Amino acid sequence: MNDMTISNNGRAEVLIHALPYIQKYRGKTMVVKYGGNAMINESLKAAVIQDVILMACVGIRVVLVHGGGPEIGVMLSALGKESRFVRGLRYTDEETMEVVQMVLCGKVNKDICALVQRAGGRALGLCGIDGALLQARRTSEEDLGLVGEIEAVETSALNVILDSGTIPVISPVALGVGEDSGQVLNVNADTAAAKIAAALKAEKLILMTDVQGILRNVEDPDSLIKVLTKVELESFTQEGVVNKGMIPKVECCCLALEGGVKKAHIIDGRLLHALLIELFTDEGIGTMIE
Amino acid sequence: MNDMTISNNGRAEVLIHALPYIQKYRGKTMVVKYGGNAMINESLKAAVIQDVILMACVGIRVVLVHGGGPEIGVMLSALGKESRFVRGLRYTDEETMEVVQMVLCGKVNKDICALVQRAGGRALGLCGIDGALLQARRTSEEDLGLVGEIEAVETSALNVILDSGTIPVISPVALGVGEDSGQVLNVNADTAAAKIAAALKAEKLILMTDVQGILRNVEDPDSLIKVLTKVELESFTQEGVVNKGMIPKVECCCLALEGGVKKAHIIDGRLLHALLIELFTDEGIGTMIE
Amino acid sequence: MNDMTISNNGRAEVLIHALPYIQKYRGKTMVVKYGGNAMINESLKAAVIQDVILMACVGIRVVLVHGGGPEIGVMLSALGKESRFVRGLRYTDEETMEVVQMVLCGKVNKDICALVQRAGGRALGLCGIDGALLQARRTSEEDLGLVGEIEAVETSALNVILDSGTIPVISPVALGVGEDSGQVLNVNADTAAAKIAAALKAEKLILMTDVQGILRNVEDPDSLIKVLTKVELESFTQEGVVNKGMIPKVECCCLALEGGVKKAHIIDGRLLHALLIELFTDEGIGTMIE
Amino acid sequence: MNDMTISNNGRAEVLIHALPYIQKYRGKTMVVKYGGNAMINESLKAAVIQDVILMACVGIRVVLVHGGGPEIGVMLSALGKESRFVRGLRYTDEETMEVVQMVLCGKVNKDICALVQRAGGRALGLCGIDGALLQARRTSEEDLGLVGEIEAVETSALNVILDSGTIPVISPVALGVGEDSGQVLNVNADTAAAKIAAALKAEKLILMTDVQGILRNVEDPDSLIKVLTKVELESFTQEGVVNKGMIPKVECCCLALEGGVKKAHIIDGRLLHALLIELFTDEGIGTMIE
Amino acid sequence: MNDMTISNNGRAEVLIHALPYIQKYRGKTMVVKYGGNAMINESLKAAVIQDVILMACVGIRVVLVHGGGPEIGVMLSALGKESRFVRGLRYTDEETMEVVQMVLCGKVNKDICALVQRAGGRALGLCGIDGALLQARRTSEEDLGLVGEIEAVETSALNVILDSGTIPVISPVALGVGEDSGQVLNVNADTAAAKIAAALKAEKLILMTDVQGILRNVEDPDSLIKVLTKVELESFTQEGVVNKGMIPKVECCCLALEGGVKKAHIIDGRLLHALLIELFTDEGIGTMIE
Amino acid sequence: MNDMTISNNGRAEVLIHALPYIQKYRGKTMVVKYGGNAMINESLKAAVIQDVILMACVGIRVVLVHGGGPEIGVMLSALGKESRFVRGLRYTDEETMEVVQMVLCGKVNKDICALVQRAGGRALGLCGIDGALLQARRTSEEDLGLVGEIEAVETSALNVILDSGTIPVISPVALGVGEDSGQVLNVNADTAAAKIAAALKAEKLILMTDVQGILRNVEDPDSLIKVLTKVELESFTQEGVVNKGMIPKVECCCLALEGGVKKAHIIDGRLLHALLIELFTDEGIGTMIE
Repeated sequence: MNDMTISNNGRAEVLIHALPYIQKYRGKTMVVKYGGNAMINESLKAAVIQDVILMACVGIRVVLVHGGGPEIGVMLSALGKESRFVRGLRYTDEETMEVVQMVLCGKVNKDICALVQRAGGRALGLCGIDGALLQARRTSEEDLGLVGEIEAVETSALNVILDSGTIPVISPVALGVGEDSGQVLNVNADTAAAKIAAALKAEKLILMTDVQGILRNVEDPDSLIKVLTKVELESFTQEGVVNKGMIPKVECCCLALEGGVKKAHIIDGRLLHALLIELFTDEGIGTMIE
Repeated sequence: MNDMTISNNGRAEVLIHALPYIQKYRGKTMVVKYGGNAMINESLKAAVIQDVILMACVGIRVVLVHGGGPEIGVMLSALGKESRFVRGLRYTDEETMEVVQMVLCGKVNKDICALVQRAGGRALGLCGIDGALLQARRTSEEDLGLVGEIEAVETSALNVILDSGTIPVISPVALGVGEDSGQVLNVNADTAAAKIAAALKAEKLILMTDVQGILRNVEDPDSLIKVLTKVELESFTQEGVVNKGMIPKVECCCLALEGGVKKAHIIDGRLLHALLIELFTDEGIGTMIE
Repeated sequence: MNDMTISNNGRAEVLIHALPYIQKYRGKTMVVKYGGNAMINESLKAAVIQDVILMACVGIRVVLVHGGGPEIGVMLSALGKESRFVRGLRYTDEETMEVVQMVLCGKVNKDICALVQRAGGRALGLCGIDGALLQARRTSEEDLGLVGEIEAVETSALNVILDSGTIPVISPVALGVGEDSGQVLNVNADTAAAKIAAALKAEKLILMTDVQGILRNVEDPDSLIKVLTKVELESFTQEGVVNKGMIPKVECCCLALEGGVKKAHIIDGRLLHALLIELFTDEGIGTMIE
Repeated sequence: MNDMTISNNGRAEVLIHALPYIQKYRGKTMVVKYGGNAMINESLKAAVIQDVILMACVGIRVVLVHGGGPEIGVMLSALGKESRFVRGLRYTDEETMEVVQMVLCGKVNKDICALVQRAGGRALGLCGIDGALLQARRTSEEDLGLVGEIEAVETSALNVILDSGTIPVISPVALGVGEDSGQVLNVNADTAAAKIAAALKAEKLILMTDVQGILRNVEDPDSLIKVLTKVELESFTQEGVVNKGMIPKVECCCLALEGGVKKAHIIDGRLLHALLIELFTDEGIGTMIE
Repeated sequence: MNDMTISNNGRAEVLIHALPYIQKYRGKTMVVKYGGNAMINESLKAAVIQDVILMACVGIRVVLVHGGGPEIGVMLSALGKESRFVRGLRYTDEETMEVVQMVLCGKVNKDICALVQRAGGRALGLCGIDGALLQARRTSEEDLGLVGEIEAVETSALNVILDSGTIPVISPVALGVGEDSGQVLNVNADTAAAKIAAALKAEKLILMTDVQGILRNVEDPDSLIKVLTKVELESFTQEGVVNKGMIPKVECCCLALEGGVKKAHIIDGRLLHALLIELFTDEGIGTMIE
Repeated sequence: MNDMTISNNGRAEVLIHALPYIQKYRGKTMVVKYGGNAMINESLKAAVIQDVILMACVGIRVVLVHGGGPEIGVMLSALGKESRFVRGLRYTDEETMEVVQMVLCGKVNKDICALVQRAGGRALGLCGIDGALLQARRTSEEDLGLVGEIEAVETSALNVILDSGTIPVISPVALGVGEDSGQVLNVNADTAAAKIAAALKAEKLILMTDVQGILRNVEDPDSLIKVLTKVELESFTQEGVVNKGMIPKVECCCLALEGGVKKAHIIDGRLLHALLIELFTDEGIGTMIE
């Protein structure tokens, strides 16, 4: 149905239909992990920005954590930098880390901020270095180079920014601490979002992905599970219902819930206005874990 | 078109369409005069309450000033009190004033507050006596009994209430001052709304009426004037374009604009969600004077 | 003794005599249940208003909860509404409830506010509907119609008002919740005062009654008990010393004390300035339970 | 009339009689110059302390500026220090200044503070050195030694103290500035009070003296002038009505009024509770200049 | 002289010597333009970071605006991007702008923030896009591509950050407005610093350069002018005393002074701790214009 | 080494060397007991004042508690008052107490305040009477006359003053409470400092003494113990290592540490800038107990 064909009356009904959700979420903190197709496709991108501004406008304290998109790879190629992979994960040497930082904090992050500002919102773009927001140490298990695990989240700058009605936009680049002090480390964006959500005792962590959500049967798009508890999720995972690509997402959600976040959502970022639909309509759009 | 048939996508589009208006109005003060059919018809009533709560939810500082509806007349008859009219206006003797106060402040006002509270909003019901909000003297020109003209608006209680995120609901009953100190006076609800809007330096005064707005040709519903300036309005009035019933409404609007209110709206309260449509859609629904 | 005959010196001595009490009570919250003769007799009424304003002036956070006085009965008769009684208690059908609300919230409450404002004080008149201050369910035990028992007191609006140096004046009309959501319920004013005092962790609940206080011997006005503990009071009640009419008052006091109120007073509202004498003189005037 | 003979009813009447004054003065600043007999006689002293605490309790921002009383002379004699007088004024050499500072700031000031604290009030004792409250230069006209004229009053500490509900008690000892930087200077207590009152834009300056007030005929105690304007006062002074001892008092009052103080009072500190009687009774007790 | 040889006593003397400057600058805002050699040499870099943290520690509100250093050129070469120059100025096409943004906001800015954080300070790295801090339009006179002139500075985010005791570090990249809305523009770092200083009504603008300051005779390093007024500076400029390279620096200083900045400093960033020496020693190190 | 010979570079190094200490102590509370030679020698006095102002300037919340110096004895002799000693301690009769109060609060205290103000700092001089800061009872064990033991510290005035960026300077004179209400009592300055530090949960208590600190061997100035724990200190004391004169100092330190103070320092007030050297250099100057 085309937007243009909706009568003013219909419009009012839609707004009113959203009212109970708005009332419920005012003053609550939500951390949105923004990534995947939603960061590539121009219409999707514009829609996410609008959704996030609307969320802020109705009083939600929104934090946007973004991933890298394909831009890191593009820049590495442009620089003629060969990529090396360890068990399918990119090895981050110093030169790569420099590019990662530059692309994430200087390009992706500021481009998002520019979109928010142009759409009438207010955003400040930060990374884990700023105010020591994300403090990490090098991953212990395997040598991936300058890849870190977040040890601490320093939320004071975030709270100052959120209190002033501004949307913090955050790149997943962390300040090394302990023996890695002096280094900047690459951290996983989903995990960064989960950790930030936990540190802020957020109402919701929302992961924007390129899948529908958790399916009972991966082959069957109609088998989407709309709501499930953390306990159910764990038994699903043991049963092998949660498929491979979904496992890290699910782990992030559990991390957040264990850290005190009320609800974690896995939504389909390939749909226009997935955020608004998940938050402000009855059926929602993805999987909510509580 | 039925609300149920709007897709989630359509819903998101509608919300996004409202976004620029929400951004524009956040933190602004709007005084709504609530009266006429919108106070009688149950669906209209419920819709107004929802509209006002939504306005508050997106950060608008809403003040609701209500009129009396037919309930004063009903109660006067029930009490066997004969009405006396002076040039078409009800003469207000002491006994009538007591009934007016009781019905407006005790019944109409608190019923509105109960509706707001039940719909999840927060309202405090006041009249001009509370905190000496409305201070009046008896109308000088003609003897209508205990009918007053507002001399001063004491906004301190209003600001405290608005700052706490609550909707003040106000009955048009004033505290007599000067030689009328010791009296309670009946004041016109439209004028009360205009004076309150001026005292609060409101962004908008919105009068809910039982007409479409200002028509260029009263016979022709298609001749609605959507926007006009105060100067245009004055020349229209001189030309006789503004019809008789509309004159006091128009005078209220001018009073508000002269007092520093940015815009005054005359909207058709007989339409569902007239407030939302006027505020959050492109075309709006009534006449805006600026 | 006539006030006029007191020398300036005597006046100063009286003020100074009150000083230790003023020092003791500054910043403390006191909930006064105002009712009985003190609401009918014009001199008593004026004196109560002065007392309450003086209390506010010396920094006491005063909340005034009023009863109905005879005005509900008068209005019901005027409307030709027959009263029905269940075990001596008025049965409240919907029509009666409407009159109760209208008279209490629209007439009694606002008249008190007007008196306070005219005497130079600041008052806001509320009822249990406003800000969902009093939330009630229908009385379980017996069918009295729309009579409620208070389940919760939402004090946020009260605190905002008290912080701004204003006296909240409260009608004992409650918002139905749970299965009674959608109803307005009649609640007992003494109980409302006690529950509000407990919710505010008040220093004192003061019940203005038409008796002297608790007498050791009902026949002997000289047997007034000035101070007693809650434990003593309970043994007195078991011994039958507390007479019938006094029992609900005593129960209210116990309710308040159990809810965290420091002291409950039963004072004789038939005496001029009973409040001031109880609070600011050495002997006081009624019975204090601690 | 003995205080003990006043009935509770009479007491309440007195309190109520004071109410309009309390309402009028709440939140206003008053600077009281405390000196003369009121500082010597023990009963008068206790009464002044009570008065000042009561003033603070009803919300008046009281500043107490004290003079030296006879204690400086006593100490100088005890130390065998000879006094030298220039045209009737004590010459203040360095040694004398040290004694003045020690007696005023260490004895008189702290004794007053101890009285206030013991009577349940809150006082902080300061002098013009503290926070550079009083900044002075040596008197130009004649050589009186270390006697200063106040050039500036730094009110920031005073405001912090008053905001915290505490009574500042101030000794008239000033910090030398300009060429007198490095010196402590003796300043006139009346002038200090007037300058402080002006700097605080006080409502009232109240000078406690050992006379009745301004008399039309110095011989006739019944010729007390209760109220007069600054203009009237000036013509009186020219006519020689204002007698010699009164002239510096009158000049102080004018200084205060010119500096923005609303009213200046000259009251008889020899009467018990002169402050309360002046402030809280209809007739008052001294002369008010406006 | 080696730091190690200074006795503790000498150390204390030095701290005390700095005290009057610390007292003078506490709570004042200073905008430091950081660039040139001070950004390249590792020891100089570490010293600037320490200086800035010390300034913040003693209560100065420091804003750091950085230039690009040679890193933009390095990255452009690495990407095989040919540079084009217009009258000696780099032409900024879209591709170049992207690299400029990425290098300035993602590399230079965040590297500075990391240094501050590691040295125990608190920094947030922003650019003109964040919170629309710097709003610009394309330079009118000549076509340099995406080079902008700052039209407005939105200081609200800066103030929030400074109030929280954090150092904002700012990249000279601006958000296009008006016809350039939708673009990101390259702006001159010196001008950005001057405009920010003016918008914040700063006490000082400090330009770190690679020269000593303004020399009366460019050939003679001993001819440094320590202090001069804006008027003197203008006559110098007309006389040709100010040499070519210095002209834009001097224009920036004038821009700041005209915008309300109290003092502008041109200091030699090639010296270790040039900032501290300029601020906290008697002679200072560069040229101060007032 | 002479201060004048330190190069600007050296000066900057010294400031930077102090930076980590400044960062560590900002916002922390430190109570300095000021006494002994540091109060007598003019250069030492000036240096202490500078140190304390510098501490305040870098954000330390400094409270200065002073002792009496020799001035009490001088004044007593000047007044021909014979001293009586009980086991080596001065017996304080009423007359002596009056002199003690006068000298401490009026002379010593205000002289210190004057020095602070002249050096550009902000100080308010108080004693234990002001705001009932120090509440004491007469020492139980032996009759020393009006000598008290501190029972309670009322910190509210201190916090108001510290929050406004001002240095409270405190005389060790206490307000008697309980059976000593009505008395002013002489209290030990070291103990007063320790009790105030504990009540403020200070970071440090610093006792300025006339010895080097705790020596392992009293005869050997090189045996200074720089750091020791409270447990070590206790065993030292039992072993008799802590010599006689040091015992009360050590007891004060323990009192403070038990009361929640983090660290207690005993420093040598005979050295210039002992405070700065202890706080802002690596080696420090005295003994720190933790």
